[in-house]
Amino acid sequence: MDSQNRQWRLVRRPEGLLRVEDVELTPGDEDRRPLQPGQVRVRNLLFLYAPTMRNWMSARSDSLHEIIPLGSPVKTLAAGRIVESLDPRYPVGSRITAMSCWSEYDIIDTVSAPQIIADGISAVEALGPFGLNSLTAYFGLMRIGRPCPGDVLVVSGAAGSTGSVAAQIGRIQGCRVIGIAGGAEKCAWLRDQCRLDDVIDYRSQDVSSALRALCPTGVDIFFDNVGGDVLQAAVDNMAKFGRIVLCGQIAGYNDQDVIPAFTNMMRVIYGSVRLQGFLFGDYKSAVPEALADIIPWIRSGAIVARQDIRVGFENLPLHFNALFDGTNQGTLLGLIDEDAHALH
Amino acid sequence: MDSQNRQWRLVRRPEGLLRVEDVELTPGDEDRRPLQPGQVRVRNLLFLYAPTMRNWMSARSDSLHEIIPLGSPVKTLAAGRIVESLDPRYPVGSRITAMSCWSEYDIIDTVSAPQIIADGISAVEALGPFGLNSLTAYFGLMRIGRPCPGDVLVVSGAAGSTGSVAAQIGRIQGCRVIGIAGGAEKCAWLRDQCRLDDVIDYRSQDVSSALRALCPTGVDIFFDNVGGDVLQAAVDNMAKFGRIVLCGQIAGYNDQDVIPAFTNMMRVIYGSVRLQGFLFGDYKSAVPEALADIIPWIRSGAIVARQDIRVGFENLPLHFNALFDGTNQGTLLGLIDEDAHALH
Repeated sequence: MDSQNRQWRLVRRPEGLLRVEDVELTPGDEDRRPLQPGQVRVRNLLFLYAPTMRNWMSARSDSLHEIIPLGSPVKTLAAGRIVESLDPRYPVGSRITAMSCWSEYDIIDTVSAPQIIADGISAVEALGPFGLNSLTAYFGLMRIGRPCPGDVLVVSGAAGSTGSVAAQIGRIQGCRVIGIAGGAEKCAWLRDQCRLDDVIDYRSQDVSSALRALCPTGVDIFFDNVGGDVLQAAVDNMAKFGRIVLCGQIAGYNDQDVIPAFTNMMRVIYGSVRLQGFLFGDYKSAVPEALADIIPWIRSGAIVARQDIRVGFENLPLHFNALFDGTNQGTLLGLIDEDAHALH
Repeated sequence: MDSQNRQWRLVRRPEGLLRVEDVELTPGDEDRRPLQPGQVRVRNLLFLYAPTMRNWMSARSDSLHEIIPLGSPVKTLAAGRIVESLDPRYPVGSRITAMSCWSEYDIIDTVSAPQIIADGISAVEALGPFGLNSLTAYFGLMRIGRPCPGDVLVVSGAAGSTGSVAAQIGRIQGCRVIGIAGGAEKCAWLRDQCRLDDVIDYRSQDVSSALRALCPTGVDIFFDNVGGDVLQAAVDNMAKFGRIVLCGQIAGYNDQDVIPAFTNMMRVIYGSVRLQGFLFGDYKSAVPEALADIIPWIRSGAIVARQDIRVGFENLPLHFNALFDGTNQGTLLGLIDEDAHALH
């Protein structure tokens, strides 16, 4: 039987935004290559778009992160259904989330600990509100930001998938929460639906002076998804003993040149400010504990989350840049086709 | 009785290095102005030169630190003898260290909690090896760097008053310690007297490639007194879960322009690196605990410390720039006159 599998391979390292010519739709044998013990075959249904994927496409020499080799498929977190299994812990028919590829079929080594999606949870929920971005928000805010009631929490990229959850967890923890986002629609959503205390529209306002006006006692926690000028504005307004949660630096992901982080390091010293980077993976063992908080928050409406589902396996690369141009509304997901929708 | 007191006032904000014309030797009435309850009069004997004083002389609008008003005396930490007291806890004849001025006599509010120098400890010891810089090194390394045996510790400004102590405490804690300093003499002292594992001479070596060669598994703790290019080199070489102790940024203190902190923030994120500023004052209540470690370390020779004592009250401003041009050897102290030496 000939292979029917299709996958998107990275054939050129992007300069700036990802272009269609940087990837190529090619056949792959993951639908028929024999499995080894400890492997499962999945039919992928839904893909998470994550900004960090853009970094994996680059090849900076000093990077600590994964680099996709040229000619290999683009990697991402995906939800799929197991169609064949050589690991009894992962039965055929069950659904998992796993690091996979932009590939219709994939072979997953179960040593990588793919997560089985529990009954009653949809694939959209598993990759969306209960997924990587929400967990990242949770660990970043709770473990690194360490919110106290009354703290002033500022979140950049606040209308994004991670930012909106971080902001709302902060509200639940008793912080006064200020979101930074781009455009009136996002700001209204943050104010009205997510119930933040204040919102700064970076497209129409100067972030630094807005922060100064809104936070006369300074910023206690800055949860940063953006970096660049927004990080600078926060550094300049941090309170004594402030914490900066370095979650992402999306402002720089498409730059070829290294961009300066920020100036004014003396404020960090005199303010006894802590800046801390982290990855979701640092807290993997604490996922059940986090979900025990997150699932009820989402189901009760204490946290609102929205998903932006784009359809069509052949369109996967087209929608990637929505992460960077601000046009996505909530967690950006790629659904393999309309028919697959019923499976979630 | 006419006032005999002399003091150095800041009359112009320095541009770059402090110049003689930025300060003025003027009379002051601190030797005869009547005391209020809770005040003591001191005859200052010895002054600590600290890089942070340079920042106090500037007036950046967003600063969290003290700013010396134009026309006011230059502030510093000083050791002096109490010559008159309206606080029974501070008897006449006892010696204290206190925030004071470049002033022969000064009036100290005891609410600021000046420290009485215990019998058997000289004023040079009180401002030197048992003083502010050693305590800063201790708290920065132990509380923020949190060394573990086997950690790779890199210290910039390693031959300085703070850096040399931080490096040696790291050695005592079981770290592999690499010092960065300028010039063969300092590097030899660090290697031979302070017994560091490796030394990088930033004047003759490229710090980043030297770090890469010396630390193939990355830097676990970077104790930074310098900032600028040296901080950049460290960021580029941090190990996963590395800690950067932001103690000082001496490279930038004399700059008018704000200098970039560093680039490559993504390494901080992917490396789960923590950068943390701090001040000695954050840990004031823990000073006795710190001295219980530091005093025996110094007295046993486990930590070597050296002092660079400059003489003459009228010469105080002349020696200040030795902090920045690399000519000082150890803790830079200003002794009021040769005769006062006997008092320490």
